[in-house]
Amino acid sequence: MAWNTNLRWRLPLACLLLQVAMVVLFGVFVRYQPDADPHWAEDLKRRNLSSDLDNEFYYRYPSFQDVHVMIFVGFGFLMTFLQRYGYSSVGFNFLLAAFGIQWALLMQGWFHSFHDGYILVGVENLINADFCVGSVCVAFGASLGKVSPVQLLIMTLFQVTLFSVNEFILLSLLEVKDAGGSMTIHTFGAYFGLTVAWILYRPNLYQSKQRQSPVYHSDLFAMIGTLFLWMYWPSFNSAVSSHGDAQHRAAINTYCSLAACVLTAVALSSALHKKGKLDMVHIQNATLAGGVAVGTAAEMMLMPYGSLIVGFICGIVSTLGFVYLTPFLESHLRIQDTCGIHNLHGIPGIIGGIVGAVTAACANSEIYGQEGLAHAFNMEGFNGNWSPSLQGCFQAAGIFVSLAMALVGGVIVGVILKLPIWGQAADENCFEDAIYWEVPEEEKNHASHPEDSTLKPPEP
Amino acid sequence: MAWNTNLRWRLPLACLLLQVAMVVLFGVFVRYQPDADPHWAEDLKRRNLSSDLDNEFYYRYPSFQDVHVMIFVGFGFLMTFLQRYGYSSVGFNFLLAAFGIQWALLMQGWFHSFHDGYILVGVENLINADFCVGSVCVAFGASLGKVSPVQLLIMTLFQVTLFSVNEFILLSLLEVKDAGGSMTIHTFGAYFGLTVAWILYRPNLYQSKQRQSPVYHSDLFAMIGTLFLWMYWPSFNSAVSSHGDAQHRAAINTYCSLAACVLTAVALSSALHKKGKLDMVHIQNATLAGGVAVGTAAEMMLMPYGSLIVGFICGIVSTLGFVYLTPFLESHLRIQDTCGIHNLHGIPGIIGGIVGAVTAACANSEIYGQEGLAHAFNMEGFNGNWSPSLQGCFQAAGIFVSLAMALVGGVIVGVILKLPIWGQAADENCFEDAIYWEVPEEEKNHASHPEDSTLKPPEP
Amino acid sequence: MAWNTNLRWRLPLACLLLQVAMVVLFGVFVRYQPDADPHWAEDLKRRNLSSDLDNEFYYRYPSFQDVHVMIFVGFGFLMTFLQRYGYSSVGFNFLLAAFGIQWALLMQGWFHSFHDGYILVGVENLINADFCVGSVCVAFGASLGKVSPVQLLIMTLFQVTLFSVNEFILLSLLEVKDAGGSMTIHTFGAYFGLTVAWILYRPNLYQSKQRQSPVYHSDLFAMIGTLFLWMYWPSFNSAVSSHGDAQHRAAINTYCSLAACVLTAVALSSALHKKGKLDMVHIQNATLAGGVAVGTAAEMMLMPYGSLIVGFICGIVSTLGFVYLTPFLESHLRIQDTCGIHNLHGIPGIIGGIVGAVTAACANSEIYGQEGLAHAFNMEGFNGNWSPSLQGCFQAAGIFVSLAMALVGGVIVGVILKLPIWGQAADENCFEDAIYWEVPEEEKNHASHPEDSTLKPPEP
Repeated sequence: MAWNTNLRWRLPLACLLLQVAMVVLFGVFVRYQPDADPHWAEDLKRRNLSSDLDNEFYYRYPSFQDVHVMIFVGFGFLMTFLQRYGYSSVGFNFLLAAFGIQWALLMQGWFHSFHDGYILVGVENLINADFCVGSVCVAFGASLGKVSPVQLLIMTLFQVTLFSVNEFILLSLLEVKDAGGSMTIHTFGAYFGLTVAWILYRPNLYQSKQRQSPVYHSDLFAMIGTLFLWMYWPSFNSAVSSHGDAQHRAAINTYCSLAACVLTAVALSSALHKKGKLDMVHIQNATLAGGVAVGTAAEMMLMPYGSLIVGFICGIVSTLGFVYLTPFLESHLRIQDTCGIHNLHGIPGIIGGIVGAVTAACANSEIYGQEGLAHAFNMEGFNGNWSPSLQGCFQAAGIFVSLAMALVGGVIVGVILKLPIWGQAADENCFEDAIYWEVPEEEKNHASHPEDSTLKPPEP
Repeated sequence: MAWNTNLRWRLPLACLLLQVAMVVLFGVFVRYQPDADPHWAEDLKRRNLSSDLDNEFYYRYPSFQDVHVMIFVGFGFLMTFLQRYGYSSVGFNFLLAAFGIQWALLMQGWFHSFHDGYILVGVENLINADFCVGSVCVAFGASLGKVSPVQLLIMTLFQVTLFSVNEFILLSLLEVKDAGGSMTIHTFGAYFGLTVAWILYRPNLYQSKQRQSPVYHSDLFAMIGTLFLWMYWPSFNSAVSSHGDAQHRAAINTYCSLAACVLTAVALSSALHKKGKLDMVHIQNATLAGGVAVGTAAEMMLMPYGSLIVGFICGIVSTLGFVYLTPFLESHLRIQDTCGIHNLHGIPGIIGGIVGAVTAACANSEIYGQEGLAHAFNMEGFNGNWSPSLQGCFQAAGIFVSLAMALVGGVIVGVILKLPIWGQAADENCFEDAIYWEVPEEEKNHASHPEDSTLKPPEP
Repeated sequence: MAWNTNLRWRLPLACLLLQVAMVVLFGVFVRYQPDADPHWAEDLKRRNLSSDLDNEFYYRYPSFQDVHVMIFVGFGFLMTFLQRYGYSSVGFNFLLAAFGIQWALLMQGWFHSFHDGYILVGVENLINADFCVGSVCVAFGASLGKVSPVQLLIMTLFQVTLFSVNEFILLSLLEVKDAGGSMTIHTFGAYFGLTVAWILYRPNLYQSKQRQSPVYHSDLFAMIGTLFLWMYWPSFNSAVSSHGDAQHRAAINTYCSLAACVLTAVALSSALHKKGKLDMVHIQNATLAGGVAVGTAAEMMLMPYGSLIVGFICGIVSTLGFVYLTPFLESHLRIQDTCGIHNLHGIPGIIGGIVGAVTAACANSEIYGQEGLAHAFNMEGFNGNWSPSLQGCFQAAGIFVSLAMALVGGVIVGVILKLPIWGQAADENCFEDAIYWEVPEEEKNHASHPEDSTLKPPEP
């Protein structure tokens, strides 16, 4: 199949149309929330707050910036491990995220911040928009190297929509707690992305196999992504938790889980190699699984040792997934998962949902205090007949809803993306920046240069 | 022209002299502001504040750190796109910024924080010093690869001085609002830098043309700079805004503008390439223009859709500038603008000034509330006869003052820098780290290969 | 010596055993501190605090995240300067830090946060754990390229233990002030690491000399580490200072010291090169010495000019150390200090201790105010007979205690690590990722090889 990969009209049109739509919709719907409105000073008095510091901005802005870094540098650079796909990894991630956050502000706004005909946005909306886009970045990981930027924009449009619907069902209808998004972001994003990749299966992808591997420096670039994801994950899981102890606890739990995860990922990586050598793929990815898996429970009373146990298990499961499951998915289920998102977001996401359900089901007023329990699970929302085990059941239901939405949505979006009109590359041209980017000329004959001249002594 | 590029005495002398001067001036003038003074605990009671959190530190420190990253990693790595100039880009930016922030603390301090013979510094001064240096980093972009570190130190010395005078005229005399520095930082910095580059025109620069292009990995390093600038720009534009709603609003507006800018930059980049391919230069630079252009108005009631429109326009204008204007400037106006700062800071800076003037002129007490309006525009400073249209006029005047200062100052500084005594490289040795840096040995027979092997055609 | 470097059982076993121990110990000992406990809302009322913002989380979390970045990206990437040791630098640093923070939470917890049989952890504990691991990262710098990950885990286990004992002696017994850890982190870490390196002396290390140097891009990766360390150092030195003015002042002082340090490091680097060229090693390292050297005194009334003077001196001393002292240590004292930690952490750490002692000895109630003085030096702890000069003496004693602990501990740990059973590499295989990592195949015979020429010999 030789598709036309010249995007000269398709990509500009897609970008401009979407952006014009955003301008119009923002014009009609989006306004500032009271904390970002110039009437704030009067508002402060009316709400009897003592100082400007009570502005939501000061509670959430530092966490927001950390999350922002995770989406753009974290996910962007994590995917630069491919030898000839760095521009696309960082650049397309940048593009889809920049569009996605706008569309997410609208979609999530209609569901959660809609008052008197307007969406009122503040810093928490910015964080949630970044979260929503995070699930698109996850899904992108499965299709990395095989889709065009036009396909990515379309996928983002649909996935953000579905994400918001799913999130509304979970958070507002099922009253599920999922501050760090184990279910809404990771489980949904991963299985959506895997389903899309399944529909977009490329039988002759082996023709691009020589580019589907890293070079030395590309793996170092990817570590920049890994580390920023790893370091800022405590901010991710605590960013939209309740003020005070919940944010504090979420950060501590995530910190613990991630630390444990590193050790077991390293252990398994070495144990599964016949010479005991470490594999960069595992270090780059499996070390993060602990953050995914405490996404739901981090703000609950998971306890530091509980977090360690979750991280411990996920480091093992995730590394095993990379070694055994990813090849199996490709060969038997025809799912080509470029980044192994099933191991980093899929399974750990489900584990996270289960851990959350169990932790919620174990809640009681002895552990949380009467007031703390009401606060932690928004009891007033349940009209009094709330019980921990009921919460646990709803939490568990959230996992299945997310999976169902991901699979159904993924099939629909996959079919749309399969149309041969979006400028996707042929099987033998995957994982190659030069299809969509102006690549430095001299690079083509750059790297091999030393070999050509037999006159020069080899490098020491 | 074969100049002596050995800086063995000139660079150490310049550094040591400047640093000794800083020590002496700091000793005479610089003290802590009350929020950083050990009498704070007593001060807290006297000012009837409720808690340590009311210390300015907690309002501004997270934003300060983000701005700090933008100056050192953002600008530093943005300029590493050249294949053989990474050490100099990051290293010289580091040097000039480290000197510049000290000198800016003094200059800005004398104008704005001078009390009883002392400059009282606090976290806001640190942010403003970083801002001031930001304008030097902008100007450095135009001369990148063509000036010596000694020249950069001299340029920094003068530019910081002129910046502070210009800032004083705008903020204190004209009572202009410019929290994100569209005028003071970007317009001033860009046109100052372009004027200097115009004076330092190198007619034979084509002799270094083979190094004035990226290699694959250098473009990825540059994306680190781009992304940190892009992600932290909301902090940049909100860092010194008033507490509460103004900081909050500035962050939201900047976030929106930047997102829109990415889509239109990508659209234009693809549309202007004959095969529809994207150009890294545009992705690295034009995506940031939206941040520049809301610098003045971000804290005002620009509205989210207004921000999107500004970003929309700037992504287009900036990309068009890279494709058409930069070559024109070089061939017809003899301005060699290495990084294309005219497209990223020059035009968007002026647009930002205009947007700010219009937004200010449209202000009224219906939108802002009576109290909010007084707060937003420091009305007390105007002794009662303030009006939005007057503010708009002063804002517009600020653009022209900044331009005039930049052009006059740029000519003077350019002439000083043109003296052939500062260790600048010859035209055929531009864009080359090895002139000023000890470069790894084996790398030398790597990159210098093109020259050595006359068998190969030079790289395009 | 041809040791067995296959870690297939040793590394997994070490990781899993240590991690299981952590889980058990956390289960027995670690709980949340009140600010992270669900009873917080009740606690808030009992303690008569006005708002959720009084939660310790909001005072310290932004600084914590900055410190976290310094440990993982800062130290990790700073060490990637070696041409073939990037995976190990970043990866092993990641591993040891992930283990170290857990063990440090326990060790420091037993000494400082132990209440009713439980260690109560909060954000300040997370920062202190990162600090403790910082000293291990420092020590790792001396042995970089010459030790196996198993050795690093063992070193971390012992060094964290010794660090905590030393910290307890200094902070709790001697009542020393050392918020930025000039003594506890840098002096202790550096001399411990140097002693270990001395014991592990490798007489035939010259056989790996060809890999003990950077390549062009590895030096740029290292600059990422340098800059994040440099930019976030104000957060490092202020992270655990008292609320309010002390945090504020520590940030300002560190900012000033670091700025001055850059200029003198550049000056010396150029002056000491026969052609006046700059050396990346100095820019990467000596520019940071100013941060180390104000670690103790940053929160005191060091004054901005005092900070500049400290930075001024340290930039010079540190660069001189790299040029003259490191070769001397290797040739005469048989200490092979890969990263030159003696110049970046050793000498500046001692200078920092001395500066702290002098600054403390000069304290008086005129400068600090009566209340401020009591606050700054926790006077109540001294039962009334406190005097500045006594404090100064104790501060000075802290230096010697740290040195003694480092030397004795270093010898013991060095001897343990010298056992030939930990999978260390032979002298001719040092500084080589391929010993412990699966390295990209095509990298061995360099990038474009697969496509191009089968005729050419592969590079060594």
